[in-house]
Amino acid sequence: MGGCGAIFRSRPDTIIRTATHPSAMPFHDPPRLPQGFRCAATRCGIKSDGRDLALFASDVPAAAAAVFTRNHVVGAPVAVGRGLIRGGRLQAVVINSGVANVGTGEEGIVRARRMGAAAAAALGVPCEFVLMSSTGVIGIPLPIEKIEAALPELVAALQDDPVDGARGIMTTDTHPKAVSRSVGDATVTVVAKGSGMIEPNMATMLAFAFTDAALEAPALDRVLREVVDETFNMLSIDTDTSTSDTCVLMANGRAGAVPEPAFRSELLEAFTRMTEILARDGEGATKLLRVTVTGADGERDARRVAKSLVNSPLIKTMVLGADPNVGRILMAVGKCFACRIEPARIRASVCGLPVIEAGCRRAFDEAEARRRLGGDPVNIDVDLGVGTARTRAWGCDLSHGYVDENAAYYSS
Amino acid sequence: MGGCGAIFRSRPDTIIRTATHPSAMPFHDPPRLPQGFRCAATRCGIKSDGRDLALFASDVPAAAAAVFTRNHVVGAPVAVGRGLIRGGRLQAVVINSGVANVGTGEEGIVRARRMGAAAAAALGVPCEFVLMSSTGVIGIPLPIEKIEAALPELVAALQDDPVDGARGIMTTDTHPKAVSRSVGDATVTVVAKGSGMIEPNMATMLAFAFTDAALEAPALDRVLREVVDETFNMLSIDTDTSTSDTCVLMANGRAGAVPEPAFRSELLEAFTRMTEILARDGEGATKLLRVTVTGADGERDARRVAKSLVNSPLIKTMVLGADPNVGRILMAVGKCFACRIEPARIRASVCGLPVIEAGCRRAFDEAEARRRLGGDPVNIDVDLGVGTARTRAWGCDLSHGYVDENAAYYSS
Repeated sequence: MGGCGAIFRSRPDTIIRTATHPSAMPFHDPPRLPQGFRCAATRCGIKSDGRDLALFASDVPAAAAAVFTRNHVVGAPVAVGRGLIRGGRLQAVVINSGVANVGTGEEGIVRARRMGAAAAAALGVPCEFVLMSSTGVIGIPLPIEKIEAALPELVAALQDDPVDGARGIMTTDTHPKAVSRSVGDATVTVVAKGSGMIEPNMATMLAFAFTDAALEAPALDRVLREVVDETFNMLSIDTDTSTSDTCVLMANGRAGAVPEPAFRSELLEAFTRMTEILARDGEGATKLLRVTVTGADGERDARRVAKSLVNSPLIKTMVLGADPNVGRILMAVGKCFACRIEPARIRASVCGLPVIEAGCRRAFDEAEARRRLGGDPVNIDVDLGVGTARTRAWGCDLSHGYVDENAAYYSS
Repeated sequence: MGGCGAIFRSRPDTIIRTATHPSAMPFHDPPRLPQGFRCAATRCGIKSDGRDLALFASDVPAAAAAVFTRNHVVGAPVAVGRGLIRGGRLQAVVINSGVANVGTGEEGIVRARRMGAAAAAALGVPCEFVLMSSTGVIGIPLPIEKIEAALPELVAALQDDPVDGARGIMTTDTHPKAVSRSVGDATVTVVAKGSGMIEPNMATMLAFAFTDAALEAPALDRVLREVVDETFNMLSIDTDTSTSDTCVLMANGRAGAVPEPAFRSELLEAFTRMTEILARDGEGATKLLRVTVTGADGERDARRVAKSLVNSPLIKTMVLGADPNVGRILMAVGKCFACRIEPARIRASVCGLPVIEAGCRRAFDEAEARRRLGGDPVNIDVDLGVGTARTRAWGCDLSHGYVDENAAYYSS
């Protein structure tokens, strides 16, 4: 099998067990929603096939925090959402796929508000408690009437399985994505989508986390930002930062108080797992690529080098082809112009096999390297030898599939 | 035919006529070497087939300037070359392909010096007048004995056709690359190679420019840096900055003095043409992509936005597929976090067809857009509307070919 010691279940499954990041607590299999949360998805007719409208709702108002894309050009839902989240309170999130409602001007803002208002009316909650998200093609008007018409029925269909909601937010994803973990008596559940136009900065494409733990909005905001920075912000599928990235965390308190450190720890596990699931399902991906950088002169350098490796087309194609052209690791480290790099101190291994020593390619068993590179996931570990900072980043290989999906995304 | 008004001759040819950058003076067809320069190429046995060793030499010592990669990890020839070029004088350049002599430690430096010394001995010139370059796989020892054995014969074969020398430095290039222009009574000729691991910073993979104009080394250095910055440094095939990038300019003075501005102008034309030839022959490329950014708040912003567009996998696949998914232009502009971007002022056109107006996708004839995107080259023009700075950048589309070449580059 090769690979780096992790076990992957078949592609359409949502569960990935990650041996290199063990956790005392297992993930719930199947995932479940926390108490008081329900969801539903339907087809309202925006996409030519498949579900394209989803709703996640809490029975009671929940404390909430959110982070959004740093792209200068943002979707109307992001522009509206930034205002809504200031209240620190949400009761529902309504999401469509197929059309991103980006590059649509003032009319886009109007339609985003109508989408939230329609969900609020159907649920019988205030408009300011409903955040809306849209994902899909940029520059196309949002078919708001289709969404408005479908919402009453969607509310009537609310149920307990998060996978059902996750299915409604997919675009080029090959499977719905949901994970959940326990934290004391509470549960934290993450659903997400995204497989292209992904190098999140502030949040991944669309990720929604729900918990019945009782936490106030400022604590949620702090924990969310810290955990997103270590997980979704270190994910890159294609370097292209979306205009719609949104990550929302809602806590309805139904399971009572939970210590913030314990909650943070479980959220980190859940987001790490979801980051790996998203990377593994990158457009056209055949493998998850995990990069660990140690010995960096500061966290900024560690992050830049790790991102340089997961983003390099030559590293990505090396991983695809299981081709031990490991000199490319030196190239990808060295091109981080602004970082402190001392070539003679660089060490690297591929799936545990040392391949670079003192900045030079060292002798290694090439057949064994090929065998390990042929597995999934592929781990690349780089030690810069100049400091103590470390970080992880996640990506995937680059295959024909990515080219095919994106050469005709709009047309298909 | 579609396209943007330029005429391309068949792929294996070295000549590209560029209607949007007209020049009073034509390129010499076929290209020729300036007076007093000769070259030769042979197969010394580093690669499994094809020529892999080339030599360019002047009859007399020439004033010289060079720029090298900014990658922290550099090839032994770059490390040695940085010292050599301080003398401002060269008489020859010897280049091998197949092995880059990078990540090879002290022994790599020794072999690079032996390579220069062998060429110097065969030519009967001082060692310090011979610069060496190597391109190919990183981390493999340079087969120096093969090079040493082949050099006397290579010197005996020196002749006048630059295309012959260009053939000896190819790696994944699909054709040899050479252009030449007149400047007064003098000629300036550029030969280059490179089709992957290319986002040069300081210079492209390997480019050698020769002139019989009389210019001193400080003037050559100034002109070279300015022109490289506008041309090769705005080229990106895959964002991966090579460890071997080298651009050398030699002036042997055989044709007498030429005014510096006239020389600069012809060098700019020649390097611009060569940049387009390199981009068009990017690994797997089917089209040249030209991006012009205007209205930027400073040159730094203009360059960042232009590079963001040529480097975006989603723009590159849109160009491949002739898919008018033009909202991606907004994404690629907006993800330049550090730049001044006012979304409502962004305008863009694709091959002359306006597609973005005031930050929104405007109505346009999609069939016409497909037709134009189906041509070669594809021009994307973006006006940021916030300043007066402008720049150009060059790239290519992303196809299966790139993936195929790089998933098994080392193994094949």
